[in-house]
Amino acid sequence: MPLEIQDSEVDIVIAALQPNLTTFFEAWRPFFSRFHIIVVKDPDMAEDLQIPAGFDLKVYTKSDINGLLGASSSINLSGHSCRYFGYLVSRKKYVISIDDNCLPAKDTAGSTVDVVAQHMANLKTPATPFFFNTLYDPYRKGADFVRGYPFSLREGVECMLSCGLWLHNADYDPMTHVVKRNQRNTTYVDAVMTVPLGAMLPVSGINVAFNRDVLGPAMFPGLRLRNEGKHRWDTLEDIWNGLCAKVVCDSLGYGVKTGLPYVMRSDAEAGKALESLKEWEGVKVMDDVLPFFQSLKLSRTAVTVDDCVKELAGVVREKLGPKNAIFTKAADAMVEWNNLWKVHGAQNA
Amino acid sequence: MPLEIQDSEVDIVIAALQPNLTTFFEAWRPFFSRFHIIVVKDPDMAEDLQIPAGFDLKVYTKSDINGLLGASSSINLSGHSCRYFGYLVSRKKYVISIDDNCLPAKDTAGSTVDVVAQHMANLKTPATPFFFNTLYDPYRKGADFVRGYPFSLREGVECMLSCGLWLHNADYDPMTHVVKRNQRNTTYVDAVMTVPLGAMLPVSGINVAFNRDVLGPAMFPGLRLRNEGKHRWDTLEDIWNGLCAKVVCDSLGYGVKTGLPYVMRSDAEAGKALESLKEWEGVKVMDDVLPFFQSLKLSRTAVTVDDCVKELAGVVREKLGPKNAIFTKAADAMVEWNNLWKVHGAQNA
Repeated sequence: MPLEIQDSEVDIVIAALQPNLTTFFEAWRPFFSRFHIIVVKDPDMAEDLQIPAGFDLKVYTKSDINGLLGASSSINLSGHSCRYFGYLVSRKKYVISIDDNCLPAKDTAGSTVDVVAQHMANLKTPATPFFFNTLYDPYRKGADFVRGYPFSLREGVECMLSCGLWLHNADYDPMTHVVKRNQRNTTYVDAVMTVPLGAMLPVSGINVAFNRDVLGPAMFPGLRLRNEGKHRWDTLEDIWNGLCAKVVCDSLGYGVKTGLPYVMRSDAEAGKALESLKEWEGVKVMDDVLPFFQSLKLSRTAVTVDDCVKELAGVVREKLGPKNAIFTKAADAMVEWNNLWKVHGAQNA
Repeated sequence: MPLEIQDSEVDIVIAALQPNLTTFFEAWRPFFSRFHIIVVKDPDMAEDLQIPAGFDLKVYTKSDINGLLGASSSINLSGHSCRYFGYLVSRKKYVISIDDNCLPAKDTAGSTVDVVAQHMANLKTPATPFFFNTLYDPYRKGADFVRGYPFSLREGVECMLSCGLWLHNADYDPMTHVVKRNQRNTTYVDAVMTVPLGAMLPVSGINVAFNRDVLGPAMFPGLRLRNEGKHRWDTLEDIWNGLCAKVVCDSLGYGVKTGLPYVMRSDAEAGKALESLKEWEGVKVMDDVLPFFQSLKLSRTAVTVDDCVKELAGVVREKLGPKNAIFTKAADAMVEWNNLWKVHGAQNA
């Protein structure tokens, strides 16, 4: 990947859900040390953080969050959602966020994957949402557009969101975790692809990157389940965020890519999914959520991400609100995020 | 792949564009020898075919084609298009078709790829066109639906078309072949995925399989460029066919998969692309074709593949016909194919 990446254009945002980040940071040191790192500590966690020296790093805690959001905020930033605070205080063009239980993966040739380089390649080369290229990302080395790909579409569009994947412990809901507790994801799929216009995907917050300058107003923690724990399988916050971001990108002619880079995800907690099973609201919620997003068309008068989020919040409130109070809360959080972004997020270095 | 494949449910269809098929059949023997094979000889080729012994194989020639189509046919079965004749005379549920310049590929572990087993796995497991699964085909061993995938969609739908890929000599248009004459496709992407509802893809005829019982009426040679040669890059017949098949599958709630299996494609002819460059009509045609298919919605009253093809031919004639005579000819061929299928194709063993 010969793309040049400036230190000054990237922030790494890490949500700290565990106090000891020593292993995490030592493993990522070769890839993260040149960049500014924002660590957001889960506001529910009392213990002090352990972070090795030698990083350009700033830690944000509960008091920073409360100071910025105010007492009556409708945005809940506990658990995995705390990372969104990092998006708000970042001043860089691009943000990369990796869960604190992930370590670098190896590719099929045995080389350690540079997540930063791959995410930036995804974001800095065009996306192709209007026609599926069967040989995947045509801008990767050794690839191109296959026969039949209209020449008028070969310039592509700007990519705003890059969704990376994970090996070892897959990102399943609690039911699947319990049923397949010994199954590990071992298939390294050496591909990046643009998710086609109109197609929705479940974006996972485990390993993502985005163009903060443009997409920031749409990168919020909206949906929160009533009994949300500290595990990925307890949440849908990132799935909801991804659907919102995809609808906004589709409406404004931007691209979303998925595939590389991989991270290696720890399965230390995998056995605990059984506890979450009984009351997991997520299993029913998505049957309402997905058809809503699939049939959604934002108006042509919404020409900025900001406009789109405002409109989206309104439709969520009107169409989904009556079905479940969590959707009304999501709409409240989206409106508040949009306002917060104007004051705090929309500033550059 | 533990799926059982009956010898009696699969035909292998090979279009013979070169007389000596010895290397081809010897290489494929371990995978093809249990199945019935239909060889359709390019009606323009005078030389006798050389095919090794030991296969359950039937060769169809120009006289068979003329006998079935009649003198005034609007369907042109010369060149790569001759394989469609094999679809018409097959009596099996599934058809697999591989170009005669392709040999078995090796997977990342060094094992020779069984194209039949992989295509049949693609066709016999469900497709998931309504939501993109970020870990690709959830029915593959070691995979499942990721968190956020609605449970109501996890049954999937029937897969009707399986599009395999190719290593070594990629399937480019003549322009790209000339510009990148030393580039070879070496990336083995170990994934199968459903192409989402509404998303179009350039289906290549190099390596495909389909459910003939259901999709047969939509597997026709429709579009023919005015100066069409004997090379893949000279044609758009398969691209057009794929767009038609995808629109029909989308309309009827069926799935289309792409990815595995790979074949190894010879580049013996790659240097000759320059000859096709000057007059290649394909470069302009797709800029009309793709927007047409993207905006197409077949009516709900078309409830069979047969209905859909009839309707599609009518819309092609009306909307695209005035732009270029090749589209009117395509519509004629589609109507004729539909009639031929009722008489000859719609018969089972």
